[in-house]
Amino acid sequence: MPDRPLKALLFDVFGTVVDWRRGVIEAARALAGRRGEDVDWGAFADAWRQEGYLEPIAQVVTGARPFTPVEELLGEVLPTLAARYRIGLKTNEFAELVSVWRRLPAWPDAKGGLERLRRRHLLAPLSNGSFAQLTEMAKRAGLPWDCVISTELFGAYKPDAATYRGALGLLDLDPDEVMLVAAHPIDLRAAAACGLRTAYVPRPEEWGPAARPPAPPDPGFDVVATDLEALAGTLDDPGFDWPARPETRR
Amino acid sequence: MPDRPLKALLFDVFGTVVDWRRGVIEAARALAGRRGEDVDWGAFADAWRQEGYLEPIAQVVTGARPFTPVEELLGEVLPTLAARYRIGLKTNEFAELVSVWRRLPAWPDAKGGLERLRRRHLLAPLSNGSFAQLTEMAKRAGLPWDCVISTELFGAYKPDAATYRGALGLLDLDPDEVMLVAAHPIDLRAAAACGLRTAYVPRPEEWGPAARPPAPPDPGFDVVATDLEALAGTLDDPGFDWPARPETRR
Repeated sequence: MPDRPLKALLFDVFGTVVDWRRGVIEAARALAGRRGEDVDWGAFADAWRQEGYLEPIAQVVTGARPFTPVEELLGEVLPTLAARYRIGLKTNEFAELVSVWRRLPAWPDAKGGLERLRRRHLLAPLSNGSFAQLTEMAKRAGLPWDCVISTELFGAYKPDAATYRGALGLLDLDPDEVMLVAAHPIDLRAAAACGLRTAYVPRPEEWGPAARPPAPPDPGFDVVATDLEALAGTLDDPGFDWPARPETRR
Repeated sequence: MPDRPLKALLFDVFGTVVDWRRGVIEAARALAGRRGEDVDWGAFADAWRQEGYLEPIAQVVTGARPFTPVEELLGEVLPTLAARYRIGLKTNEFAELVSVWRRLPAWPDAKGGLERLRRRHLLAPLSNGSFAQLTEMAKRAGLPWDCVISTELFGAYKPDAATYRGALGLLDLDPDEVMLVAAHPIDLRAAAACGLRTAYVPRPEEWGPAARPPAPPDPGFDVVATDLEALAGTLDDPGFDWPARPETRR
């Protein structure tokens, strides 16, 4: 690989930068009010993420279904989930519930870490969230992106290679000038296959306090960091050894 | 039109937010160095903007040629212009010259005006500049966009209606929730035809000190402001009368 400095950092968002689970639980509980007092909101949030987001997105990636906007995916499972978890919301409240994903809270380290990383790098999300979701979320949470890149722009979802390549094309950068930062090895492996550098930021709390620990890092990941502040510390360290490409040290 | 507050402001960039002419003149002169001492850099910049940007973009809009990335358009006329203006640059320096458009300086009021407007509105460029141009320019000039929207995302150029509609789609907003801010009546008229609100910010210096005065505003434009600070003042004024839609006052 050419000996070039890292120019841009792309971030997975749901789970990596924002705490979707706490955000969904708190906002859904507030929306349901007294009607939701007996609901297991954690189980509802986990099922929604799994069945209304991860699973239909995987179907799009494998070609089992055509590209469908993410807020449509999140909305179409709500009747089933509302019945299963007895969340007490009516059909006319489902759109409001879907909009909760635009107002998710950042992890405590995210804003400070991003501010620090932004001094030397161009920062953008590369997320399966919609352009509108990511833009509104950033404004509310104060996430200092230089631009917003949603996989919606490519009519595809991660980990489809078209999304990583599409982001490189929009930024007019070569793969080794760009690093993907993500809490999910599957995302990082797909980015690495397109030539991007990788930073693994495990988020043990993504699926709640009772979740299994995150997957161990692949040996090929360039950086492993406990959070975004730690990532900034690593990338700012002139003595950091890039595992796979020592010649690209900056 | 529905009685809804203004949520997002979209900005034309070249001429409205940044001083492309001064940026091109200064950077090209610096690049040419001693070889460019006798060049009329102002005439070169004006011709480049006209023949390498406005005219080929108009050809794309009318369908006379297929969509072509803007940096390709800017580059393809350079051999002709380099000969005509004897700018002394070699073919291998043309790419560097094209990259000048990524480093244009903001008008003196732009950053402060945008910072103020951003408190109450979502801000994004809607420009015929490429995504990479707009993103790099914003980072260098400190333009506080919430996201970057290039007409490249729609494979079209303004004033094609597909660009205004594309931006509304990405932001998931209705036309009356969005205002286009531009120094060019043709752009504003096309946005208004798509239902957007309009703010005309004439830039008498866009084509240099000797230019003809800007076109007078159309009576249908919602706001006319001398610069972006003045625009912020108008939009912050609770007593401002929206000419065409008094019911949408906020």
